[in-house]
Amino acid sequence: MGWGARERGLVCGTLPPGRLNAITDVPGVRVGHRTLREGEINTGVTAIVPHDGNLYRRGVLAASHVINGFGKSVGLVQIDELGVLETPVLLTNTFSVAACAEALIREAVEANPDIGRTTATVNPVVCECNDGLLSDIQAMAVTEAHAKEALRAARAGAVEEGSVGAGTGMVCFGFKGGIGSASRQLLLGGQTRHLGIIALTNFGRPGDLVLPGGARVPHPDHDRATGDATEKGSVIVVMATDIALDYRQLLRVTRRCGAGLARLGAFWGHGSGDIALGFSTAVEFDHDETRDFVPTQRLNEARIDLLFQAAAEATTEAVLNALFAATAFEGRAGHARPALGALLDAQDRHA
Amino acid sequence: MGWGARERGLVCGTLPPGRLNAITDVPGVRVGHRTLREGEINTGVTAIVPHDGNLYRRGVLAASHVINGFGKSVGLVQIDELGVLETPVLLTNTFSVAACAEALIREAVEANPDIGRTTATVNPVVCECNDGLLSDIQAMAVTEAHAKEALRAARAGAVEEGSVGAGTGMVCFGFKGGIGSASRQLLLGGQTRHLGIIALTNFGRPGDLVLPGGARVPHPDHDRATGDATEKGSVIVVMATDIALDYRQLLRVTRRCGAGLARLGAFWGHGSGDIALGFSTAVEFDHDETRDFVPTQRLNEARIDLLFQAAAEATTEAVLNALFAATAFEGRAGHARPALGALLDAQDRHA
Amino acid sequence: MGWGARERGLVCGTLPPGRLNAITDVPGVRVGHRTLREGEINTGVTAIVPHDGNLYRRGVLAASHVINGFGKSVGLVQIDELGVLETPVLLTNTFSVAACAEALIREAVEANPDIGRTTATVNPVVCECNDGLLSDIQAMAVTEAHAKEALRAARAGAVEEGSVGAGTGMVCFGFKGGIGSASRQLLLGGQTRHLGIIALTNFGRPGDLVLPGGARVPHPDHDRATGDATEKGSVIVVMATDIALDYRQLLRVTRRCGAGLARLGAFWGHGSGDIALGFSTAVEFDHDETRDFVPTQRLNEARIDLLFQAAAEATTEAVLNALFAATAFEGRAGHARPALGALLDAQDRHA
Amino acid sequence: MGWGARERGLVCGTLPPGRLNAITDVPGVRVGHRTLREGEINTGVTAIVPHDGNLYRRGVLAASHVINGFGKSVGLVQIDELGVLETPVLLTNTFSVAACAEALIREAVEANPDIGRTTATVNPVVCECNDGLLSDIQAMAVTEAHAKEALRAARAGAVEEGSVGAGTGMVCFGFKGGIGSASRQLLLGGQTRHLGIIALTNFGRPGDLVLPGGARVPHPDHDRATGDATEKGSVIVVMATDIALDYRQLLRVTRRCGAGLARLGAFWGHGSGDIALGFSTAVEFDHDETRDFVPTQRLNEARIDLLFQAAAEATTEAVLNALFAATAFEGRAGHARPALGALLDAQDRHA
Repeated sequence: MGWGARERGLVCGTLPPGRLNAITDVPGVRVGHRTLREGEINTGVTAIVPHDGNLYRRGVLAASHVINGFGKSVGLVQIDELGVLETPVLLTNTFSVAACAEALIREAVEANPDIGRTTATVNPVVCECNDGLLSDIQAMAVTEAHAKEALRAARAGAVEEGSVGAGTGMVCFGFKGGIGSASRQLLLGGQTRHLGIIALTNFGRPGDLVLPGGARVPHPDHDRATGDATEKGSVIVVMATDIALDYRQLLRVTRRCGAGLARLGAFWGHGSGDIALGFSTAVEFDHDETRDFVPTQRLNEARIDLLFQAAAEATTEAVLNALFAATAFEGRAGHARPALGALLDAQDRHA
Repeated sequence: MGWGARERGLVCGTLPPGRLNAITDVPGVRVGHRTLREGEINTGVTAIVPHDGNLYRRGVLAASHVINGFGKSVGLVQIDELGVLETPVLLTNTFSVAACAEALIREAVEANPDIGRTTATVNPVVCECNDGLLSDIQAMAVTEAHAKEALRAARAGAVEEGSVGAGTGMVCFGFKGGIGSASRQLLLGGQTRHLGIIALTNFGRPGDLVLPGGARVPHPDHDRATGDATEKGSVIVVMATDIALDYRQLLRVTRRCGAGLARLGAFWGHGSGDIALGFSTAVEFDHDETRDFVPTQRLNEARIDLLFQAAAEATTEAVLNALFAATAFEGRAGHARPALGALLDAQDRHA
Repeated sequence: MGWGARERGLVCGTLPPGRLNAITDVPGVRVGHRTLREGEINTGVTAIVPHDGNLYRRGVLAASHVINGFGKSVGLVQIDELGVLETPVLLTNTFSVAACAEALIREAVEANPDIGRTTATVNPVVCECNDGLLSDIQAMAVTEAHAKEALRAARAGAVEEGSVGAGTGMVCFGFKGGIGSASRQLLLGGQTRHLGIIALTNFGRPGDLVLPGGARVPHPDHDRATGDATEKGSVIVVMATDIALDYRQLLRVTRRCGAGLARLGAFWGHGSGDIALGFSTAVEFDHDETRDFVPTQRLNEARIDLLFQAAAEATTEAVLNALFAATAFEGRAGHARPALGALLDAQDRHA
Repeated sequence: MGWGARERGLVCGTLPPGRLNAITDVPGVRVGHRTLREGEINTGVTAIVPHDGNLYRRGVLAASHVINGFGKSVGLVQIDELGVLETPVLLTNTFSVAACAEALIREAVEANPDIGRTTATVNPVVCECNDGLLSDIQAMAVTEAHAKEALRAARAGAVEEGSVGAGTGMVCFGFKGGIGSASRQLLLGGQTRHLGIIALTNFGRPGDLVLPGGARVPHPDHDRATGDATEKGSVIVVMATDIALDYRQLLRVTRRCGAGLARLGAFWGHGSGDIALGFSTAVEFDHDETRDFVPTQRLNEARIDLLFQAAAEATTEAVLNALFAATAFEGRAGHARPALGALLDAQDRHA
């Protein structure tokens, strides 16, 4: 079955999802994957593109929150200072961050030949998880060309989930993980707006997963799966919205992604690089702005609980969608991980 | 029934609790309450005392984490810089922070007449929640004398929970909240050690509470309880341990209290001052240290997941214990809040 | 002589000062002092009031930066989360923070009887330095009444500097310190705007002071003044502007106050609670806002260096103005501190 | 003249320098450069190696402080979480970070074949400045091979300064900048210990430089040099010490590098990625640690002002040493920058 959490009756919270129940419910946001599956290589790149235009010239408001910093993402230092995203976000494996960063630099320079000449340089943003269990990460197999293919593949519409793109070799709560997405609809300013999540899920100890409204999931093969039982994965949560916020507000909302992870039984484990990165397409920054002051909007802070709730709920659901979309997988050196969906289906059949 | 979560079969996680299942399982830690219930006043003070000695002379390692900063706690700035707790921690209502701080200053000066004369001043630590719904907070009824009585009342052994001390007028997920405690036992360095939590619970929207392994709890009187349905409470989580850590490690562990709150369905609401404050009695600071270097210990970081798990689990359980210990309460202006325990008991009888 | 740094030819940087060369150059900002000098008591309160209206109902944008956190200020946790100042800022001695906080609470409740009843509580903001050398700090001599008198005394126009208000008993680089102020004029959006500083100066080791464009100042009585030569003071820098910024921008500007301190030879010493608190009167928050989105303005970030420079320069100058306004002082237990101005005058006469 | 600041009579502060007055005064620390000067390419790599052993197996305590985050350094997220440096630090130009990161990964994997297989991945640390004015940064000319050559070239002894390694194309206060180093000697625990700085200097507006004890330096060619007068450079300050600290203490010391920059007239400009990275060779982390608790040492905090002062002083001096070691330089597209030393020499001859 290819159903997501919601189709299985596992509803995360009370807010309604968007039409696609994906980050692409936020108008203009596109997602693309480049999957690598060759021999011991099971990895890839996923691109999240905030809008169709020249992002360097017309950046979007962004904020990052490091839930647990055992990770090697790049680009966060500048986002923390300036609150602007000026490239697409690429997700990949830990040792392919450099190749993806170079791809983003070259794409930006190509579109903006003044970069590093008469204007500033560009800040590539790449986040990662370690897929070394199922893929030969030492091979550093992802190239700039692969990263550019993920960017080219980015489109609106339904998001392909599971073992695809950066999610190809990821593991979550001892099951096959990968890419998942979800969204929430919010009525603000008299209009329907969205908050969407895409998650690269590679975290959680086998046996720790708790389903919404429900039971802890015993892992079918707990001992082999756990090894020394430490949390060694990571999770990247990218959040998009078309709601106008200021930087401080966006940061507050982005932090709530961590609540969504905790509700699944995670405790942001030591070895897990858990990063949330949010952006709002409703707030743009003109690189060549000439006015001294720029009119903008902020949310009435008394409404922000709605976004907090949406961020937490959609994060939980995106992780579950990744788990349910992924099928059983055998990777490097014969390491295999089962699918959560198949396990629950089997349980249902026996119930 | 006075049972806690565990006695009701609601087990939070997998680690074993300490003998008392309370913060006082950490050797040397004492808790004292001073409850004020007079007319429209339903408030109080709760004292957490790390050890029997002169805390100013022999401070303990401490770290704070602001989960959501809509709060008025005092003393955190210095803890964040120096990592030392040099007074007991007092909990009270929002407008009684000043009186409690003055009490801590005067107690410290009495025991250490050189304070503010030939040595530094002292950093009082007071955390708070807003009990204005059930108590006349404008009365600023707590005095220095009350705070000192809470300090005098501090003792080892079982912790009185529910509507007591600072918890007297608190509300949690629309039910009567208050003081709750829990602990976890850990085997490290060949010895049994403890991580304990005491929580002052005044947070959570009615209808959002999710029990462990289980169902969302519909609130019996949702509309009246919610008002405009925004999160307006707060929660203070004080964590103690006798495990040796360095400051960075203690901060990492303290952060995991937030995961314990999220598992109950909270998303660290906008109007909620959610603060976690951790200390370790295993690491002391001699105010009059004369050596240039001080031998100390840190935890092998590969073991820290055990503490992360303990902090998250015990926080969840401490909140539930507060809810189950509290009985139905009528306070200021006839505002009343039901008891969660009574509701579940009634449901059980009907099931 | 009552001259400031500028009148003595000590020019800090290159930007022009405002008409008053004080924080009150920012339209609407008022400053008031209540000085206590009775026997061993040499202390007081200084109030900075952002505007004439109801600050709780119409808060202003605020941001704090802890340069070194050996301090006991209150109210920063909530400012860091919400970016709003909803009371005046009071400065006082370390052990009088509680009395000042209570005064701010009572004033806010009096003007807004719904506080703690049908709306949230209020976040009093009080910053402090330790004047224990020259004043009997253990006496906790400042009362709520004194704090209210400082608030009542607040007015526009020239700021009284030196040993006045909270500055009465302060010491800076071994000389008599206290209150100092300075400002810078900036042309933005076709209008003249201001950035102003008021500093409560109680920091710096004797012998470390470096004057602008000039020499290190040897302390006349180095050995007696230094004691064990550790930095034990503090400095509070309050920055006001009428320039529209968002929170992130205001925080960036506020951080530059630390550069202004370093230029004087300070290194933000261990024992010094060095805090910068900035606010912008150009950005208000309506407590009773009903719109979902609020139109606002942010600065074109490419112009922000101008504000960085202004913050650093005016901070340096405000500290020097405090030093030059203060005259020699004998306080508690015969402890005395000379005036920097008198020392330089004497040097000039001998040159 | 190849003299440094000290030899020119410009003494920064009062603490004595180490024998080499360089970061290599810290026992075990080595520095290596790979300089690229070919046509329009004027760039390079500088390696700082904390000790001779396997850094992944035997990491050193580290802490980072982002003074101003307009920068693209990698590796800081994990250092902020874990406080461990597990690769050498490489400095390079902004667009060569990826190549340097890949070099560090491959070197670590070669020495530790279990990386990404049976143990965690590795966190490469690379910091950068933008040398696009004098070098063709779009060429992304630095390769993994160059980075490895810088690592191989690392040695103890005097540090080559000026236009060398990563410093080849850097500009500082409108003069030719580059690599500079300095150190301070401290007596602690009865032994002579060191705190050393290496700086990659590419910051500061022409006309803003203030020399110690002295005058602002007018830039000879101010108009051409400034362009739009915004701060567009960056500065990386790497601090090493053999003094035992805990993470919190090291972070406090590392922050004081910013004071050293401010004393030169800088205000940590908007466009400048100003990063300080500190490490202590006295505190190691065994990757394969089997004990639950690890004995360690922390500094008596009452001694930390000594390190604060050393960090500030040595940072100021390292920047000046970079300026004095660099000679006039003509780079990409005929852009040229004069040498500060030559300017002062000419002034001296005319005086």
